[in-house]
Amino acid sequence: MTISCSPNLYLALAHYPVVNKRGEIIASAVTNLDIHDMARAARTYGARGLYVITPLEDQQALVNTLVSHWTKGSGSVYNPKRCQALEMVCVRNTLEDACEDVARQAGAYPRTVVTSARDHSGGISILRFRELLERGNPYLLVFGTAWGLSPACLERADHILEPIRGKTEYNHLSVRSATSIILDRLLGRPSLE
Amino acid sequence: MTISCSPNLYLALAHYPVVNKRGEIIASAVTNLDIHDMARAARTYGARGLYVITPLEDQQALVNTLVSHWTKGSGSVYNPKRCQALEMVCVRNTLEDACEDVARQAGAYPRTVVTSARDHSGGISILRFRELLERGNPYLLVFGTAWGLSPACLERADHILEPIRGKTEYNHLSVRSATSIILDRLLGRPSLE
Repeated sequence: MTISCSPNLYLALAHYPVVNKRGEIIASAVTNLDIHDMARAARTYGARGLYVITPLEDQQALVNTLVSHWTKGSGSVYNPKRCQALEMVCVRNTLEDACEDVARQAGAYPRTVVTSARDHSGGISILRFRELLERGNPYLLVFGTAWGLSPACLERADHILEPIRGKTEYNHLSVRSATSIILDRLLGRPSLE
Repeated sequence: MTISCSPNLYLALAHYPVVNKRGEIIASAVTNLDIHDMARAARTYGARGLYVITPLEDQQALVNTLVSHWTKGSGSVYNPKRCQALEMVCVRNTLEDACEDVARQAGAYPRTVVTSARDHSGGISILRFRELLERGNPYLLVFGTAWGLSPACLERADHILEPIRGKTEYNHLSVRSATSIILDRLLGRPSLE
C-alpha cells in the first residue's frame, strides 16, 4: 500500500523541549544542515511543510536568515532547487504553535506523531502510520534534536512511531538520516514491496 | 529478500573526481557532517567501512583530525557511540586506492557500484544490487559530493545504481539523505515488504 493522494503530512524539528545527555530538558542550538536536509527530503516526498521549533529568539533569527538567503537572497539565484525546498520552512515558538498553523492551512487540527530512537509501549508501526495518513486527516510528524524529545513531549503526542532498526544493534542515526529513512518508508515508491 | 549474512559492503564518499554546477571536474571540500552521518548509517546497517576519498592533503588532514577526535580524543569519552561509527572511516587518495584496501581486507577486489541522481541506461535496481550482495563478493558503493561523480567515474564503474525517486518530481536529496535511504532500502528490515 502507498499513499495514493498527496499526503496531508507536515514535519517538525524540535529544538525544545528536548533532553541533553544527562536527561535534562534544554533548548538545543539549530544545525543549518538539519534544515537543508529535512526540507529537501520533505519536498522530495511531498510533505507540505517543515516547522523549525525553537523559543530562542537568536536561533529563530538564524533560521530566518538562512531561509531568506536561499528563498529571496543570492542563494535563490545560485541554486533555485534549494529555494523550492527551503520555502517550505517556518519557524515557530512551540509545537502547539505549529499545530495551530497546520490547522489553519489544513482546516483541521493535526494529530501528532513523535519519533524516538527508543522503544515505547504502544508505539505505532510505519505501516499503521501509512494507514492513518491514507484517511486524509493532517498529521504533524515530530523529530527531536540533541538526545531526543522530552518524556512529557512524547507522552502528550497522539502516537509514538516505532524506532528505525537497521541490520545491527547500533541505533544512533542522525536526525537527518532518520527523517530521510522514515519519509522513504512512509511515502517511498512501492517498487520494493 | 534480505541479505542473510553480514553484507560484504563498503562505502566511499568521493570528493574527487566530481563535477561542479557547470560540469567541470573538481575536488570538493569535505563536509564534517557527511562523515558523521554516513559513518553512523554504515554502522547501523552493517557496512564494513567508509572510505573518504580526497587527493587534497589539507582535506585529508581535516578528516584525520575529525576521526581522531572521536575515536581517540575527548570525543571518544564524551560520546563512545560516535567512536564506534567513526572508527570505520579511512581516508584514501583515490577510489582505486580504496578498492585495493578492500581487496586486502576482503580477499577479493571489489566491484564498484556508483550512485547518481540522474537516470543512466543500464542502471541496476536496489533489488538487483541486493541479489548481487547476497552472493557474498565485496562491493564498494560510491557516493559523490558537489554536483555528483564525474562522467568518466560513472562509466568506469561496474554498475550504476538507479536513482532514488520520492513521491514528487523533486530530486535533490543531500548525499547524507541518499546514503541513508539507499542503505535502508538495501539492508533495512524486511517488515515493510
